Amino acid sequence: MWGYPEPISRLIEQFMKLPGIGPKTAARLAFHVMTMPSEDVRQFAAALSDVKTKLSECTICCNITEQSPCSICSDPTRDTSVLCVVQDAKDVMAMERTHEFRGKYHVLHGAISPLEGMGPNDIRIRELVHRLGDDTVKEVILATNPNVEGEATAMYIARLLKPFNVTVTRIAHGLPMGGDLEYADEVTLAKALEGRRAL
Amino acid sequence: MWGYPEPISRLIEQFMKLPGIGPKTAARLAFHVMTMPSEDVRQFAAALSDVKTKLSECTICCNITEQSPCSICSDPTRDTSVLCVVQDAKDVMAMERTHEFRGKYHVLHGAISPLEGMGPNDIRIRELVHRLGDDTVKEVILATNPNVEGEATAMYIARLLKPFNVTVTRIAHGLPMGGDLEYADEVTLAKALEGRRAL
Repeated sequence: MWGYPEPISRLIEQFMKLPGIGPKTAARLAFHVMTMPSEDVRQFAAALSDVKTKLSECTICCNITEQSPCSICSDPTRDTSVLCVVQDAKDVMAMERTHEFRGKYHVLHGAISPLEGMGPNDIRIRELVHRLGDDTVKEVILATNPNVEGEATAMYIARLLKPFNVTVTRIAHGLPMGGDLEYADEVTLAKALEGRRAL
Repeated sequence: MWGYPEPISRLIEQFMKLPGIGPKTAARLAFHVMTMPSEDVRQFAAALSDVKTKLSECTICCNITEQSPCSICSDPTRDTSVLCVVQDAKDVMAMERTHEFRGKYHVLHGAISPLEGMGPNDIRIRELVHRLGDDTVKEVILATNPNVEGEATAMYIARLLKPFNVTVTRIAHGLPMGGDLEYADEVTLAKALEGRRAL
């Protein structure tokens, strides 16, 4: 590729497979790797392999974990009656950073998106339904993303869980804290108005 | 890091060592790697290692190569009387893409930059002087970058090569082709004016 020595062009191709990395960035990264100490590069390569070999999905909540059940599922101090449903393992971390939620999680690994060929069977909805079998869960909080796919997924799950003896809630939409009303988009502002609460 | 399972946070740290990659991008890349097929990840890891183990500097021109001397230095059809001095292996490729230069190269691997602690002995200037020993080279074209460090390096080399029986030239500065005079910065425009030629 572009006349570079083969090992370099092969590494450039590999970097280009990553999201948001085009040919120029890939070349810059590959040349940077060449100047890194050998030990650092060895660690980088090992970290890449480890992420595939050492991680798996928790058999309970489907979160990414080193051992199953994951640390949250096996934590006896957490409330088993509330389940927070998120799209992504990264979303679990975002929720944990708030220190506000002490229940358990369920990671869908995606959202329903007909355009991308993602149907209900392509994400971990079956596993979620399975967890509601023994009546320990009293509330399911749908914390999928506030966009078309996330909303559609929340709607789908809410309808699916109707027959179960469980409260289904959706996280609030509204103005982000620290934001400015003037700069809020119409949809967010309309949602904020719709979701107003008595003080 | 951020409560992610250890293999993931280790890969995030590794990605963060690359230039221009912050914590958020690193996390996105690491999670993407997790969803890649195992074989692709194996190839990525191998490409990383190969770049350190299979590449070295050409003993003649200091370019990055799989075997030394490199393909350009060992090409008998190329003009040995002209040497194009560039800062970087990437610059060799840029020059080659023009298909205008049929001489040989010398790669400095950097530029003189007191601010970054790079002196003349930290780049391949000694190797360049060594190549001028046997009088085959008639012209040295200084094609270092058109910025402070590149200019300083060109000046330094030009002065250093004074005692040698060799013509030292600098690539032209001026308006980039396809550009617009209106939007050119003053320094470029001044250089373009200074370097005007009779038609």
